[in-house]
Order: sequence, then C-alpha cells, then structure tokens
Amino acid sequence: MPLTLPQLDEPREAKEKCGVVGIWGEEHPARLAFLSLYALQHRGQESAGLCTTDGRIIDRAVGMGLVSQAITQRDIERLDAHAAARATAHAGKGVRKWGGAIGHNRYSTMGPSAAANAQPLVGHYRGGPVALAHNGNLVNAVQQRKELEGKGHAFSTTSDTEVMLALMAAASRDKECDALAEALQQVSGAFSIVVLHQDRIEAARDPFGWRPLAIGKLPSGSYFVASETVALDVLGATYVRDVEPGEIVTLSDDGLSSRRFAEASPRRAHCVFEHVYFASPASLIFGQTVQTVRERLGAKLAEEAPVEADLVMPMPDSGRSAATGYARASGLPYREGIIPNRYVGRTFIKPTDAERAAAVRVKLNIVSEVVRDKRVVIVDDSVVRGTTTKIKMDQVRAAGAKEVHLRISCPPIRYPCFFGVDFADPSELIATNRSVEKIREIIGVDSLHFLSIDGMLSVAACADVAGEHFCTACYSGEYRIAIDPALRKHAMTGNC
Amino acid sequence: MPLTLPQLDEPREAKEKCGVVGIWGEEHPARLAFLSLYALQHRGQESAGLCTTDGRIIDRAVGMGLVSQAITQRDIERLDAHAAARATAHAGKGVRKWGGAIGHNRYSTMGPSAAANAQPLVGHYRGGPVALAHNGNLVNAVQQRKELEGKGHAFSTTSDTEVMLALMAAASRDKECDALAEALQQVSGAFSIVVLHQDRIEAARDPFGWRPLAIGKLPSGSYFVASETVALDVLGATYVRDVEPGEIVTLSDDGLSSRRFAEASPRRAHCVFEHVYFASPASLIFGQTVQTVRERLGAKLAEEAPVEADLVMPMPDSGRSAATGYARASGLPYREGIIPNRYVGRTFIKPTDAERAAAVRVKLNIVSEVVRDKRVVIVDDSVVRGTTTKIKMDQVRAAGAKEVHLRISCPPIRYPCFFGVDFADPSELIATNRSVEKIREIIGVDSLHFLSIDGMLSVAACADVAGEHFCTACYSGEYRIAIDPALRKHAMTGNC
Amino acid sequence: MPLTLPQLDEPREAKEKCGVVGIWGEEHPARLAFLSLYALQHRGQESAGLCTTDGRIIDRAVGMGLVSQAITQRDIERLDAHAAARATAHAGKGVRKWGGAIGHNRYSTMGPSAAANAQPLVGHYRGGPVALAHNGNLVNAVQQRKELEGKGHAFSTTSDTEVMLALMAAASRDKECDALAEALQQVSGAFSIVVLHQDRIEAARDPFGWRPLAIGKLPSGSYFVASETVALDVLGATYVRDVEPGEIVTLSDDGLSSRRFAEASPRRAHCVFEHVYFASPASLIFGQTVQTVRERLGAKLAEEAPVEADLVMPMPDSGRSAATGYARASGLPYREGIIPNRYVGRTFIKPTDAERAAAVRVKLNIVSEVVRDKRVVIVDDSVVRGTTTKIKMDQVRAAGAKEVHLRISCPPIRYPCFFGVDFADPSELIATNRSVEKIREIIGVDSLHFLSIDGMLSVAACADVAGEHFCTACYSGEYRIAIDPALRKHAMTGNC
Amino acid sequence: MPLTLPQLDEPREAKEKCGVVGIWGEEHPARLAFLSLYALQHRGQESAGLCTTDGRIIDRAVGMGLVSQAITQRDIERLDAHAAARATAHAGKGVRKWGGAIGHNRYSTMGPSAAANAQPLVGHYRGGPVALAHNGNLVNAVQQRKELEGKGHAFSTTSDTEVMLALMAAASRDKECDALAEALQQVSGAFSIVVLHQDRIEAARDPFGWRPLAIGKLPSGSYFVASETVALDVLGATYVRDVEPGEIVTLSDDGLSSRRFAEASPRRAHCVFEHVYFASPASLIFGQTVQTVRERLGAKLAEEAPVEADLVMPMPDSGRSAATGYARASGLPYREGIIPNRYVGRTFIKPTDAERAAAVRVKLNIVSEVVRDKRVVIVDDSVVRGTTTKIKMDQVRAAGAKEVHLRISCPPIRYPCFFGVDFADPSELIATNRSVEKIREIIGVDSLHFLSIDGMLSVAACADVAGEHFCTACYSGEYRIAIDPALRKHAMTGNC
Repeated sequence: MPLTLPQLDEPREAKEKCGVVGIWGEEHPARLAFLSLYALQHRGQESAGLCTTDGRIIDRAVGMGLVSQAITQRDIERLDAHAAARATAHAGKGVRKWGGAIGHNRYSTMGPSAAANAQPLVGHYRGGPVALAHNGNLVNAVQQRKELEGKGHAFSTTSDTEVMLALMAAASRDKECDALAEALQQVSGAFSIVVLHQDRIEAARDPFGWRPLAIGKLPSGSYFVASETVALDVLGATYVRDVEPGEIVTLSDDGLSSRRFAEASPRRAHCVFEHVYFASPASLIFGQTVQTVRERLGAKLAEEAPVEADLVMPMPDSGRSAATGYARASGLPYREGIIPNRYVGRTFIKPTDAERAAAVRVKLNIVSEVVRDKRVVIVDDSVVRGTTTKIKMDQVRAAGAKEVHLRISCPPIRYPCFFGVDFADPSELIATNRSVEKIREIIGVDSLHFLSIDGMLSVAACADVAGEHFCTACYSGEYRIAIDPALRKHAMTGNC
Repeated sequence: MPLTLPQLDEPREAKEKCGVVGIWGEEHPARLAFLSLYALQHRGQESAGLCTTDGRIIDRAVGMGLVSQAITQRDIERLDAHAAARATAHAGKGVRKWGGAIGHNRYSTMGPSAAANAQPLVGHYRGGPVALAHNGNLVNAVQQRKELEGKGHAFSTTSDTEVMLALMAAASRDKECDALAEALQQVSGAFSIVVLHQDRIEAARDPFGWRPLAIGKLPSGSYFVASETVALDVLGATYVRDVEPGEIVTLSDDGLSSRRFAEASPRRAHCVFEHVYFASPASLIFGQTVQTVRERLGAKLAEEAPVEADLVMPMPDSGRSAATGYARASGLPYREGIIPNRYVGRTFIKPTDAERAAAVRVKLNIVSEVVRDKRVVIVDDSVVRGTTTKIKMDQVRAAGAKEVHLRISCPPIRYPCFFGVDFADPSELIATNRSVEKIREIIGVDSLHFLSIDGMLSVAACADVAGEHFCTACYSGEYRIAIDPALRKHAMTGNC
Repeated sequence: MPLTLPQLDEPREAKEKCGVVGIWGEEHPARLAFLSLYALQHRGQESAGLCTTDGRIIDRAVGMGLVSQAITQRDIERLDAHAAARATAHAGKGVRKWGGAIGHNRYSTMGPSAAANAQPLVGHYRGGPVALAHNGNLVNAVQQRKELEGKGHAFSTTSDTEVMLALMAAASRDKECDALAEALQQVSGAFSIVVLHQDRIEAARDPFGWRPLAIGKLPSGSYFVASETVALDVLGATYVRDVEPGEIVTLSDDGLSSRRFAEASPRRAHCVFEHVYFASPASLIFGQTVQTVRERLGAKLAEEAPVEADLVMPMPDSGRSAATGYARASGLPYREGIIPNRYVGRTFIKPTDAERAAAVRVKLNIVSEVVRDKRVVIVDDSVVRGTTTKIKMDQVRAAGAKEVHLRISCPPIRYPCFFGVDFADPSELIATNRSVEKIREIIGVDSLHFLSIDGMLSVAACADVAGEHFCTACYSGEYRIAIDPALRKHAMTGNC
Repeated sequence: MPLTLPQLDEPREAKEKCGVVGIWGEEHPARLAFLSLYALQHRGQESAGLCTTDGRIIDRAVGMGLVSQAITQRDIERLDAHAAARATAHAGKGVRKWGGAIGHNRYSTMGPSAAANAQPLVGHYRGGPVALAHNGNLVNAVQQRKELEGKGHAFSTTSDTEVMLALMAAASRDKECDALAEALQQVSGAFSIVVLHQDRIEAARDPFGWRPLAIGKLPSGSYFVASETVALDVLGATYVRDVEPGEIVTLSDDGLSSRRFAEASPRRAHCVFEHVYFASPASLIFGQTVQTVRERLGAKLAEEAPVEADLVMPMPDSGRSAATGYARASGLPYREGIIPNRYVGRTFIKPTDAERAAAVRVKLNIVSEVVRDKRVVIVDDSVVRGTTTKIKMDQVRAAGAKEVHLRISCPPIRYPCFFGVDFADPSELIATNRSVEKIREIIGVDSLHFLSIDGMLSVAACADVAGEHFCTACYSGEYRIAIDPALRKHAMTGNC
C-alpha cells in the first residue's frame, strides 16, 4: 500500500517576482511599510522583509510566508524603535527628523539559498550600511559578477541584488562618485529598486519602465514609493506620479528630489501582463486603472469572439473583471456558477482516480442548476499550463452544461519572460508549439478564443508616449533587449 | 507608549455551528470523510475531527483550525488502517466488509473547555463504544443533565452532545431498547446528528428539520450522509434524498435502512438563514438550490426597493449572488468596484486614527475609477453588528461615490437563535431596538433597505409541505419551541 | 535506498506513572502548584495539567511534554485569576478565602486516547464539578466499569480515573453519602489521589500505601500535599507527615482535617522501587531519605560482592549515589570515567553498523585515560531490558578497560508491576527466565552481581510498622493483592 | 498587578564560541558530521550548520537551537545526496570519489544579525564557491574590513568570518596565489578554521594555538578534523595529531597533506579555560586529558587550601571532576548532596520573594540529611558573576549545614577575553576589583579559596614546548597580542 501521498498543488501559475515599498519621515515607518506590504501581497507570498535605520546601522526583519506570518508585532516594534533612535539623536538640535523604512514581498526560489537570498539585502560598503529591495530581473548579472570576481570581490549570495551592491561598492573606490547611478548604468534588465541609506531612501526604475513604481504623498507630507498605487490607498496617501524610467528619486529629511542615471528609452517596455493578470484591479499603473482595462479586455473579447449562448460566467476570481465586460458588451446574462472554496489549504490525495477527482472537486463547486442544459461562456484572464483549466471545464460539463465556450482575455503565452515574471518552463506552457484549435481539443471545450495582441494593445495604451509602450514578449517572442542564448541555462537567481 | 497592540478582528459575524458527515462501506472512509469536510469548511473553521472503528474500538483524530490544519495525512492513514482492520477480520469469512467514518467541522467556543468538548465525542456505554457528531443545539440539555446527575451519572464535558450519550446509556439499562431513539425522544431543539457504532452509522434529524442533512450514494454503491449536498458533489455522490425530520437512517454492511423516532412536525422549522447566508451557494437544501434562492432574493430586493442609480456592486464575496439578481431585475449595469485582499491574515494596529484606518483599508480596496461621481447600489446578504459595514461604506464614499444605496437581502436580525446559530449578543446587534432609518444614519448611506420577511419567504419556499416551512425567529422573535427564560443565562455549551 | 530512518531511543526504561500535588489557601495557587510540579518532573514527563476553581466551576490547563512546555505563563495567570474570583466573592463577607489548585505530571500512553485521558480529569456529578489527579493503578477498574455500564452509565475515556469519578457519582444518588469514601472502598490497587471540589481539596492513599503522598505546611500556614517531599522543599514548606494508608485528608478554608475510608493494611506495600530508582534522591519517603538509602544499597552491594579492582565508577547519572556508597565501603578510589552528553535530543541513524554505533556513542563518552588498563567496578541502579547497558559496557571495554565488573543496587526485575510502574513487557526484561550468569554473558562483563532481596530490605526499612513494609513483587513475583489472570490482557489504561 | 513576569535565566555563565568539524571521503559525510556535532554541543548551543558540495556548488543547512533541532533528517539526506552527486559524476572515470562536509555549532549573538551571520558562511570568489566554519575571534577584523571597503569591497554580514572570505577573494586577483594562506597571514587573533572547497577541505589554526583542533582517521581511512577529540570518539576515529599552530592541512581525494602559512609562535597561547571549564572531560586537548587535569586541579586545591570538614560535595555537574580529586587528596568522604533537576526548562516567576525563591529552589534540591549539622566543602570549577553561586550556597546552609567551605578550581576571572570566550561584561564579573575576602562575604560562605595561577599551571602543562604554553589573560590581564584600546568599544561580531 503506498504510504506517501502526493500533494495536490494548484499554484498561481505565473509568478511575479516581488513588491517593494519605501517611506521616509514618519514616526512609525516600519508599521506603515508593514501595512502597505499587505496591499502588495499579491506580488509575492513566499517571504517578506522590512528594514529601518537608526542613522548608523540598519536593522532587518525577514521571514517566510505571508507578511502576517513573516513579520511579527515584536519585529515592527523593534524596527520602529530603531528608527526612532535616529529621531531622538537629532531631537537635541531642535529639529525632529523621523526615520524611514523599506519593505519587500517576495516570491522566493525554494531550496538551499532561500534564506541567504532574503530581501531586503543588507550590505556594507564604503558609503556605509545599505539595504536593497528589488523587483525585476537583470539579464547581465552573471557576466557582471564574473568580472567582479576576477577583480577580487567575494559574494555571499547568488542573487542579482548583491551584484548591484557590489557594483555600488566598486564604484565607491572613487569617494566622490554617485555610487547608485554608476551601478545602475552597468546593469541591464528590469528593475524597480528601493535603497535605504543611513539618511535617505533612493528609488529607481530601469530606462524601459518594465515594472511599475509609484510615488505617493502621505497626509503628513511625507513621501512614499511603492510598486503599485493600491499601497498608497492603504496608507491614505495621494498619488503624485510614477518614478520615471531612468530616474532616481531621493526621499530624505528634505523631502523629494530627483536625478537621472539614464535617459528613458523612447521604446518603453511596460509589462502588459501586469494589466492582464498581476497588478491589483484597484491600482493605477502605466497611466490606467487595472480594473477598467480588464473590463475593456473582456468587452474586446466579446467583440472579437461573440457566441450564441445562454449566460456568461467568470472563472473565479481571476476572470471576473473581464467577464463583466464581456457580459455587458454581449448583452448576455451574467451569473456566478462556479463557487470557489475559500478555505482549501493543502489536500492529501491518493493516486486512485476516484480520490484524485475528489481532491480536485474540493477546490471548486459548480452550481448545477445554473449550468444544466445551458450554453455557457466562461471568461478567464489567461491559460498557462492548461491542466487546471481543463479540470474545471470538465467539472462544468459534468454538471450538465450543454455547450462550454472559453474566452481568454489575453493572447496565448508562448515565450519565456526574462524581466521578472516566472512562467512555467516553456516546455510546460500549453500554447508552446500548439495551435488554438489543438489547445481547444486538449481542454475539451466547444469553442476557445484568445484575445489578439492588437486587440489587447488597443485597450491597454498609454497616452503619454507615442509608439510602443508595452513589452509583449511572452506572447510575441519580441524582446526589447537582445537575450544571450546562454541565459536560459546559466541564469542567476533573480532575487526578485 | 502603549506596547501591546490590539488585533483587528473581522470575524464572520454570524457563526453556524458545525458540519457533519458519515460514510459506510469504503476502503478509505477516513480519507473520503476528510475530503468531504473540506466542502463543509464554511460551516465551522475552528476545529475538525474524524473517527473510524475497527469493529471493536473507535479511533479519533481531532485538531484545531481548518480541516487541512487539524487533520494530518498521518491521522488519515492511521484511521483508515484502523477501519481496514475490521474488513480484514471479516475477510476470512468470504465477505469483505469495508468500514466507515464520521467527521465534524466545528465552530468551537474558546476557553478552558475547548479541547475537552472536541467533536466527534467518543464514549462508551453498554452498547459498546460510540462516536457522536452533532450539528445544532438542544434547548433542554441543562434540565436533562440535572436529572441524570440526580440519578448518579457523571459527566466529563459541558456539551449537550454528552447529554445525548448519557441518555443513550441510561436507556440501555434495558438491554433490548432502541437507545438512540429513546435518547432523541427526550431532547428538544435542533439536531442533525451522526453516530458511529462498531458495525454501523446512524444519522438522525430533529422533527422540525432545523438543520439540513442529505443522503448521497457513491459510485461504488456506498451510502453517505452530510450536512449539505456540496459534500456529495466532492465525492462524486448522487443526491438520494434528505434525512427526514424525525427519521433515523442506518448505514451498514446491508446498505441503507430507516426508522422513525418521532413524527415530522407539521410545522417545519427549516433555518432560512441557511439560504441567506450559511450554506454553500452550490448546495441543494430544503428542496432549493442556494445560489438560485440568493439571486432571487436580490431580484426581490430590486422589486421592493428600486433606486435610480448608475451601477450595482456586490459586497464581495457575501453579496455577489444577490447583487447579480438585483442587477438583472433592475437593468442597472453590474460592476465590481470593491476588491477584497485575499491574503490578509492578522494585522497589528496601533490605536492612532491614521493607523487604524490603514489597517481597515488593507482588507478592501476600492476601484476609484468605478465609483467616482457615481450613484452606486451596493448589495450585501446581511448586517449583524454593522461596524464593518459602516467602515466599508465610508471607504466607498471616500473613493468618490456621489450616492451610496445599500440593499440587504434579508430582514433586520433582532433576536437570538437557540437552534445552532451564534449571532453576536443581542445587545450588539445593530438592529436591536433600532429603526431602519436609524440604522441608515449610523451606517451613513443615502438609502437603506432590508428585504421584508414576506418577500424573503416568497422566494425561499418548499414545495413538499403546505404551510410554514421556515424558522424566521431571528427576524421575527417567533420561536417554534417555547424558550425557557433562564436559557439565555444558563445555557450549556452547544457543542455544535 | 531506505529513506525513512529509525530513531534511536533511549527511554528511561521503567516508567513511573505520575506525580500529584494539591494546595489550598494561597493567593496564587496555580503558580505554586506549577512550581512544585517541576520538582516532580521525574515522575512523568509526557504531559502535565493544573486545575483551579472559582467556587463555582473548574478551569483546567493541560498540555503535552514537560511542565515548562505543557503549561504557559498565560495558563497560570488565567487559572490564578479564576481562583481569585472565589476569594473576591467571599471578600465582602469580611473574610478573604484564597483558593486552591491541584496538579499532575503524567507518563501518558501514546495514541488515540492521549488527549482525552489527560489529567487532572474534570467531571461533573451531583456534588458539583470536580477534578481528579491520580498516581497509581487500579486492578479492578475493568470489572467496575462493566458493572456501571450495565447500570446505564456512559464513559468518555478509557482511564481508571473516570471509573473513580463514576463511582463517586453513583454513590451520590444518596445525597447524604460520603461519595469519595464510598468510591474508594470499591476500588482495589495503588492510588494516591487528589480531588479538587468547589470548596476544598481531598487527598487519599490506598490502604497498602503503595505510592508516597506527603503533607506539608507553607510559611503562610496553608497546607499542601504532594507525591514527594522534594516538592515541599521547592515551596519552602515544612514536612508535616505522610497521608496515612486508608486516610482521606481535606484541605479547606478551615485548614486540615482527616477521616478514614479504610483501615491501613497491617501488611504495607510501599514500593521499594521508589527508593531504588524513581523518587528524587532529595525526598523523604516511607520514613527514609532516598539518597541515604541509595548510598547504603551501594555499601551493601560492596559487602555482598567485593572485587579486587582499581577504581569504582558510577553509571551516570543513575548509579552515582550507590557508587559513592560502594566506593566508601570498599575503600576503592571513586572516579568519573563515563561522561554523559547532556545535550543529546533525538538522533537520526541509518541502519549501517558504523553509523548506528556512532549514534550510540554520541550519548556517552568514555574518558580513556581513566579506564585504560584498569580493573573497573561500574555501579548502576537497575537493569531492565539490558540493551543499553550492554552497549555502555562495550564502550568502556573498547576504551581499554582490562576488567569490567558490574554491580547493580537491586535484584533482577522479573515480574510485571500492576501498581503504577510501567516496566517493559516481561518478555523484554533481560532477567525473565535468565540466570545472573547468563545475563553476565549477554552483557559481556567479567563479573556481575545484583543486590539480594534480603540485602535490599535490610537497608530500606520502616521503623513504624512491624513486619512487611515493602512490595517487592517485581523481583519476587509475590503480589499483595491477587491478580486476575485476565488482567494482563484486558488491562484498562492506568491513567497514571 | 504586574502581568508580565520575568524569566529566570541561569545561563552557562561563560560562553565559548563554537565547535567545528570537517570530513572528506565518506559516502554520508553530512550524517557523520552531524553526529560529530552532537559531541561538540557543549561548545555552542544556539545554532548549528552543515555544508556539502557536489563538486560544483555548495549546499547548506543551518538552524537555530541544538544540533537536533537545527538540522533535520531531511536536511541530512539532501546534503548527503548533494555530496553523492560528485561521487556519481566521477564514477564513470573508474574511480569513486566520495564527498566531504563541514559543520559548525555556534554561540550566536542574538538580535538582528543572527540569521545573516549563521555559520558555515557560504561565499563565492574567483576560486569558486567556498564555505567557512570558524572557532575563535579576530582582533584586527574591523581594521581589515575598513581597508577592504576603501578598495571597493562590499560586505553582507558583520562577521569576522566574512572578512577572511573577502581577504581570500582579494588575494585571488592573482590567480596563482595561495588564497587561504595569504588571507590568514593578514588576520590576527584566535582561529581554528575549516574551509570547504569544491574538491577539498582546508583546516588551519592560528600561530598561537588558542583553540584546539584535532586530526582523526576513520576506520575507512578517511580523515576528519574537529575542535575536540571527543568528536573523533563518536565516529570511531583514532586520534592522529593536532593541527599545528600556523599549519594548514588539506583533506582531499588524495588523503591528508600539510603546509604552513606561518611559523608556530614560540610562546603558545593555549586557552587554559578549555581545561578548566569548556572542553569535554573526555577530550584530549593540548596534549592532556581534560578529566585528569580537572581531578588534579582539585587535588592541587586540597593542597593549597585544606580544611577540617566532614565531607566534600561537588557542585553538580560542573565541579564533579575537581571534587573527586579534592576528596581523594584530602581523605575526606565524597558525597553527593546537591541534586540538580534535569528537567527544568524555562520557569516563570513573579517578583515576590516567596515565589522567586521557589523558582530558584526548583533548579537544585539539597539532601538535608547529607548536609545537616555537617562541615561541608563544596567544589566548583569557576565563579563568573557569582549570583547563582550565592543562591546555591544559601540553599545548602538553609538545609542545615554547619559550615560551608567553597573551593574553586581556577583563579578569579578579572579580565575580558578577546580570543573566543564570551564572559560577562567585566563590570559584571564578581572578581573585578574585589578581593577574595570581599567575594567570600558576598557569597556568604565560611571560607573561600580560588586555585592560584601557579597551582593551575603546575597541573595544566604541555610537554612538547618549553616555556609558556597557556594564555591566562582572563586571570592575569596579560595578553599575548597587544589589544587596541578601541577594541572593546568597536568590536565586530566575532562570528564564532
């Protein structure tokens, strides 16, 4: 009798790497950073970390799991007391200078290096102690690291964030240099990075603007940066503007200031998948509200692929925004017929068909009365591996649906991302080397349509820059930066 | 400086007490019972338990938390091996008799007696070892217990389930008696109960039919009972019928059999709140599919309280079914503008206004673009204390809504339930001694309407019995059974 | 490759079942009971529990593991606040009546019933709520339980303590009875029991006096009972006297009072193994200090079995007291040559000889220089299974000892105990059906001597009673009470 | 009423920093290293770590607590599989090359940097990946780090071990250099260090030989290094010799080889406190068996400070070796009268005198009968802060001792150690600025004697080197290396 039972995993199929925040000038910066990390939890659930400084050294709290598990109340109190020590030291001089904190949510690669690669990364160089929190992925980190090792540098982790730190340190041999700017000029790829120093926070964004990074202003007048505006809302901050591609902004006792380490690329590379899937529906990114974009993607989908049917149902919770758009545009009734089980944690199944099926059904329940003898349109935001999609479609059909029409609010994903999204291995993507018709057959639905690239881009569009705004490489294979063929094999750990 | 920070609690405001399952005749009854408990997780999240028998003794696994936390893979293997020992013992006689299991999800009262009152309750009496899993609440348990103590009985717990066990034991002095039937004839109140014996499972339902209890048949031909049909779906079982009010059904090696311990009451007392709030939308209870009932409650609400507005939004996730019904009936556009944060666990807040507000905002984000300058109708299923409702309405308004109209798909809750629902203390219910207008003022919306009792009952209706079907005591104060005035003060622990 | 590795267990080979305490009249009875349980930790390490009463109900905290793990600071504060509620209720009447607490350390049988059988057992009967903590074992519990079941009683656990509770309850049908006395008259076996009521604690000891139970007086004037005097020392209490065999003492607001439920047996049955092995060396039990008795057992051993040797070494820590006695009586030098590793927790070993050996050596290190080329006498207190003894002797020899002479300060253990000691199964005792010479061969030493029964009794002797004082059944097979042959097979769980 | 209760701490008063092991050429190197770490558990109990290499990268497992808590069975299996991958890669070439592992037990500084400073430290430099495990303390680490930062290096931790890694990396700019030797030539202080490379282990010891480091040979022919010989015994390895001061030994597929990075200092600085207190009694260090040295320290003490008394008692467990030596030399009877409670974990006490006293008494019990009306000599190995010593002496007196004479088997500790021992702050040492007579008064004994430095050195003596062998700085204030006055204030984290 087999005693070790496999677990049923239903991971979120595409994994964004990380959310970052930075705040300066508050009495309880760690607490506020902690609260704002909750709002960015969807960007990374495997670990979280916070740093503050007392103006001399940097203290850090990191842990595994969700923010609420990774960081304790005691951590927050300790970090805020640490930050308060700086304020107290300055208090004698007549001015009270409150402190700052940076924070990080992370999708961490499992395995031996997990703990060592925790973020924020704390380091020490000529410029003093420093903490880095990074969202994105560098494409030349391996090459940069080899060069640095040849010059006698040692590394304690395998993360590309430590490469940035080492480049800052190397630049600082020249005491007068702008260490961060020089370091960022040498790296290539996607990065939205927040750096805590003894007396300020610096926040920067790569010249292509791959990942979002917004600036907010708190009611107190303090400045705040975060991966998404939804984190601003939580703190009651008003949205000021985005950090510009190629810009470094500084948050300090003197407020906000700005400089450039590079010109913004005329061809932007905003990640369109942020709109389709990653970002919070309540966020404003790249100039548009995500929820509205998703509703419009659904409407566009109804335009591209109408179908005679009895009702439109969302795949909960991912397809709901697009489904309401589809329903409104098509005029079909909108009903909820798939009920997610909000309480499912891990389930243990045994490899017999009956029990495996039960373990799957436990995640979703179909309301038979809603779908029985009906022609149903089901809307979802994406299909990555396709395995769970197939299972769900089969459940709907088993509950009595007469026809099942699947509509996906983005094109088929066929290429890897080197800029901060961790799709499955290309060989595991259902759309790699397969036609839509073939995918339809595998998933087992009566019709299937993926939104076209043009359709998608007609909806997700920035007003501020002419020409190309979005990176669509995962759909089209067209990368903004030439990718070294060796990269896939010898990729460093993107630390975020 | 205050160092101990209160936690922000947002409990599900009305707490059902428990879900039960029983299965007989399977090779892995504990595993199947375990999987089916997932589907009933919404009926109790504080502890879970399973029992099997080897034909001689009963083994039990119980734990705190969700099913996935309370029961381990090892527990399941141990319990299934225990059940298999019975089959093996019988195998020599040419017939393989698979075993059975019962399970329980529980909302447990915290405090000293939590562990001792865990369910299923395992006991021993003249009839052998026995395990009881109970959903409901007895109103004469205290009185029965006092009488038994006077006769020299001792009790190890304070639960009403142990009173049922003691009544069975007392009845068994007469060796020929039907112990369970005699015991159930002496208790009064709501109960859907499942009892595991050495060689069978008995399942019974009180004569009023307060709580649901369904019978299913597995593909293997085995029988299965569960609080809701959603648990049947998970196991791939087909719905046979409900256990009748006043009926005891027996699941054994000989299949299903039935007897009565009482006549079904001509005035049923099905809990209407199961339809409004508790039961899974995918379940069929009291003869109707919950999701359909909820959509119709929403439609009825649109009929009773129409309003000129720009859109209808659900309070996620509780108001979604009714909101789609409202939108369809009213013709108003349906949009999602309130985004729940699916990852929020515990948050630690500090009693300053700014931070408390942040801790609240972390739970929900409003999509400003959806609500700004709009007249919005928000639909929810119920209001208990009203505090979190007010906070959410304030958030919507702060995001720019021009008008906020709140529609609730059931009447105001004003009276305690003695039949298995744990509302807040009456003094904490917002509707106690308050007019709807006063409630509207407190919550701070432009208009507020609760569905009328008649409206509600016109939608939730059983076809099988003439006359009254539903208990509406929490709305109307009319109890089917006279309630001893002392009950509120000296209530025993309803164990489920 | 085998992936599941066995653990190396070196359990304390004979397991005493339980230590009990009771205290009445203190402001923080739970805290004091908690501290005193530390001193009795050697009597049971698998779980611990405490109870207090507020004069109305009983609150309980129990947990697995050592006292320090099982009971939290928060538990203690909650229990003491519970007890203080009684004092407060009485405060108005001009007299402040502090409360009481009982506590229990337990060796728990693992498995399904572990949690349900936790002690103290809390129950409810006509006399009110009650909590029982028990050290010992009843030999007629199964029979008593069957009789009670026939009379219509139900049981929630399989422990003999619940049988005592049920007998008290049954007796209480007659409201005027002395429930505890009547119950104790019906049970047979070893018991030192402490019972917490709403307004007092009762403590009783079986008529043979198998297990110790001492009365102390705190500096405040309050009374205290505990299994051993070492618990009195911890609280700064002075030793008053033992609870007499057949006596019930009551601790209440009125101080100490006494009554008898039975005459003390003229033939006592004090457990001599308490002196040899179980009790703390610092305790005074059955009229003698344990440490002194052990030194004398060692001296007697030197008298019975002298040997020409170079030095005497104790087996740490169990043989140290007897070894110093042996060294003094023999005139041989006393040296420590076996060094226990105080930090070893669980070790994981793989079934290859080299690694298994390493896992054993990790527990003890031999000081080669002390034993090399020497004739060494090693003194230990007992040999149960003999497996670990053999391993240790082999280590000593491997370190270079020329001759190894093993001396054991009690006779060979050959018979099971039914009175509260859990030896290994008789078939696993090395001395069952084996001569001393055969044991010597197996263990692999040059000479081996077990102290004779007469030698042992010449040292462990009570002055207060003529004739037989000690139960030596585990050595001699002579039981004070006739043992039902079926007992070994159908034994109930001795709950302590 | 105060609700938060302080914990009673009785830490081991002087804390050695770390034990290290390294093994090369075994099939299960991680498992063997793990077992040997058990034997060195006394050198560090706060965290433990292991590393293996597959010939390409290094894998690591570290955790908090004792070895048995910090490292799991799964860790060991993963690390051994990792090492086996190297063997497999080589297997095709006809030769099976088993792998290696290094391990570390650590006394970790608590606080923010605890996790980041875990050992072994894994790093990457031009020479490939490397792991360092270090026992000792560098006195010029701060200065070296500042110089490296000035050259553009960054650091991820605050440990002196990372400084060694950075020096290796900096040296490796010259590809042909001996990186480890060059690094060690630049550091000053105490170090016994083990370094894992892709294809070998290097082990080195500072030129003064402060900390022990032994070489063993396993039955299989593999070589093994460890801080103490007691770790050799556990693996069944025979002692080969010590790593020489100034020597680097290499363990590889080719067996053992040796080179020097420096001449051994003619004035050695073996830490005498290893003999007095730290090392296992079963170890052979600096040429002598620790247990024998301790017995002789006791005998010397009897010679220096005889007293007319009735018996000699050890302070368990620390004073036992010296006490047997004292008893033998003085001819006084040796008895155990202080019984340690082996089970005490954390205790929660309340700041009332009665309860605080109870919490202390819980740790030790006095056998009144042994000490009552007696003149007792108590022998212990050292006194650091003196607070717990005083409490214990008071307990002995309270139990009835007529006279209490305390004998300490080393001189008074008056100066800080910069070479790997973490005494309390000098201001907390009882002997700082106090005469022995004053200390006697504080502790409250009838007489007190500390062994003289000359007496101590007459017993602890190496045969192999003429002149000074031992560092006695903590007693005498004479440091072998000049200590920068700033060191005490700006000390880096000694990582071990």
